[in-house]
Amino acid sequence: MIIPRRVCQIGPRRVILSGIQPTGIPHLGNYLGALSNWVKLQKSAEPEDKLLFSIVGWHALTLPQEPAALLAARNDMLAVLLAIGIDPNRSILFHQDHNPHHTELSWILSCITPMGKLRRMTTWKVRSSKCSINSVLMFLKSRLAVARNSGSEDEVDESMLNAGLFMYPVLQAADVLVYKATHVPVGDDQQQHIELTRDLADIFNRTFKGTSPLFPLPTYVNTPSKRILSLKDPTSKMSKSSPDVQSRILLTDIASQIQSKIRAAVTDSIQGITYDPQGRPGTSNLLTILAACTDSDVTQVAKAYESQGHGTLKRDVAEAVEEFLKGPRAQFDRIRHETSYLDEVARRGATRAIEHSEVTMMEVKTRLGLASPVVH
Amino acid sequence: MIIPRRVCQIGPRRVILSGIQPTGIPHLGNYLGALSNWVKLQKSAEPEDKLLFSIVGWHALTLPQEPAALLAARNDMLAVLLAIGIDPNRSILFHQDHNPHHTELSWILSCITPMGKLRRMTTWKVRSSKCSINSVLMFLKSRLAVARNSGSEDEVDESMLNAGLFMYPVLQAADVLVYKATHVPVGDDQQQHIELTRDLADIFNRTFKGTSPLFPLPTYVNTPSKRILSLKDPTSKMSKSSPDVQSRILLTDIASQIQSKIRAAVTDSIQGITYDPQGRPGTSNLLTILAACTDSDVTQVAKAYESQGHGTLKRDVAEAVEEFLKGPRAQFDRIRHETSYLDEVARRGATRAIEHSEVTMMEVKTRLGLASPVVH
Repeated sequence: MIIPRRVCQIGPRRVILSGIQPTGIPHLGNYLGALSNWVKLQKSAEPEDKLLFSIVGWHALTLPQEPAALLAARNDMLAVLLAIGIDPNRSILFHQDHNPHHTELSWILSCITPMGKLRRMTTWKVRSSKCSINSVLMFLKSRLAVARNSGSEDEVDESMLNAGLFMYPVLQAADVLVYKATHVPVGDDQQQHIELTRDLADIFNRTFKGTSPLFPLPTYVNTPSKRILSLKDPTSKMSKSSPDVQSRILLTDIASQIQSKIRAAVTDSIQGITYDPQGRPGTSNLLTILAACTDSDVTQVAKAYESQGHGTLKRDVAEAVEEFLKGPRAQFDRIRHETSYLDEVARRGATRAIEHSEVTMMEVKTRLGLASPVVH
Repeated sequence: MIIPRRVCQIGPRRVILSGIQPTGIPHLGNYLGALSNWVKLQKSAEPEDKLLFSIVGWHALTLPQEPAALLAARNDMLAVLLAIGIDPNRSILFHQDHNPHHTELSWILSCITPMGKLRRMTTWKVRSSKCSINSVLMFLKSRLAVARNSGSEDEVDESMLNAGLFMYPVLQAADVLVYKATHVPVGDDQQQHIELTRDLADIFNRTFKGTSPLFPLPTYVNTPSKRILSLKDPTSKMSKSSPDVQSRILLTDIASQIQSKIRAAVTDSIQGITYDPQGRPGTSNLLTILAACTDSDVTQVAKAYESQGHGTLKRDVAEAVEEFLKGPRAQFDRIRHETSYLDEVARRGATRAIEHSEVTMMEVKTRLGLASPVVH
């Protein structure tokens, strides 16, 4: 993946930042999506580039979380990132909620964010539309018990959603700006939030002028992530929330589980193998997985299997996935129980993150009139 | 002022918390209102009571602030509080924005705050009603430049207000709960916010159950503050935002300024002096000031002046105000320039506040699943 660089290198280095929610053991879709891109970014970065990868616990709170599961998921996500090759000496790897500057800058930014901008966020519109708030509704009913007076689900409206859901794009902007990140690799669905981040950076720069604009306007980096589909319903994405555990392969699945899930994957009854995502989504999904796990081109892979049957393809896909996962899986199994090592990585990551954001926060507070200018 | 105590003293001590925005030099209305009550509270508190008084810089950001003026106002407010008798050894006196736990807990609470509760806050309704958003509108036009496409003021609606204004009752709840405050002396207009604070404490306690409810439900303490009116328009409160500087007496006014402002105060042409706030607001306001500055009962003061003229009353009011203010004024003049002393007070206050809130935050994070339970 190529991230555009300034032509003139006498300028600030790139500051690359991305975050992931602590959602438990990642599946193959997560891994071949965002996570493997982080590792590629780390490999391709120039020595003067700064990389920050965070596990965004504050964002997880906007949806219902079982505390014990969240605690385990935070730990597991850190172990996963180390297992797949994020190097805590090269990259700053940290828990968002270990650095207080995120919520501080989020408050500051909220004071220059017009309500209308947040209302227009697609994620908010989707969340507040009646057809898609079932999970939030269940949360409200089961945990907050504020829905007691609501006779039916139809009565639920935006007013029952929590304010954190509404505000989270502002926190996300703070996540980026507090490190003066210049490049933010995120999925397509987050592009609008990067636009908001640029907007807020620009409003701040114009409202609180100094000798130069305080925040760089970060660039959205569209990472060419593989879109991996459900093994049981190849019209939708592989998802951790699907009730059918056969629909996804987890990073922790062993060879026999991988074989059995791939063998049971929904394909089609057409003779021979072709890559046709529209007409043959199940078969094409297996080809995508095979190509991704062997770092090959999907059309070339398809060509190699054109006269083969689904049985052969599935056998080879299962082998390739096992080959691809066994290293990270073994690492993960080893690391996830090394509690003191994980704590030490998290502690060091937080210290380094705070060192970085502290400089920004002092500049921000000085421009706002919350701190005296530092005299040199 | 009497704050209700538990009958059984084998219980937690009272934790009394209040905050004031850094709004520059207070006037007599501010002083006889909230501020003198803080000093009385400090005097009347039992040794085991904890008192916290904060200058709430984060809240100030919800309205337009000139950075240089804000910086000076923060410093001056700290000096004022010391000058009127807040003892930084007895009370924890601190800047809200020096303790990162306020915005952290605010984020956490926002994730359990239904949007509808915030919409119903009167302060938000007032702010978002078209008749009263001129100051915000001017801010938006002059500072944010987002109003460029708005043809007239009538077009302005809620969507142009900043999200910080909408969220500030949540931050206020965090200000209180992060110290597990039990008693919150605030003005009438803030009573609804204390209700929200109790609501959020209750939702948190029920959602994240532990061995016992984490947050006490704080009690709103209605402080019997003197309502001091404008000297030029005794139908409205004395206010720092009135364009007529003759309408208010500042803590920094010297004797000749006090005399001239009181002499020019609007009263009435009725013979003799009586206390009649409805019929004779200007005269009654002078009696209120005189009684407050001499710690007397207003009806007794009125009786003593019943056969006197306005000239005598005004002379005595001016003398009483000068007598009342000269001590704090001299202290303030001395302290406000002792920068290193003020910095040291602020630094110590922040350290003590953080020590106190750190315990709460660790408990909160543990209940949420953001931190491991501490093993004893």
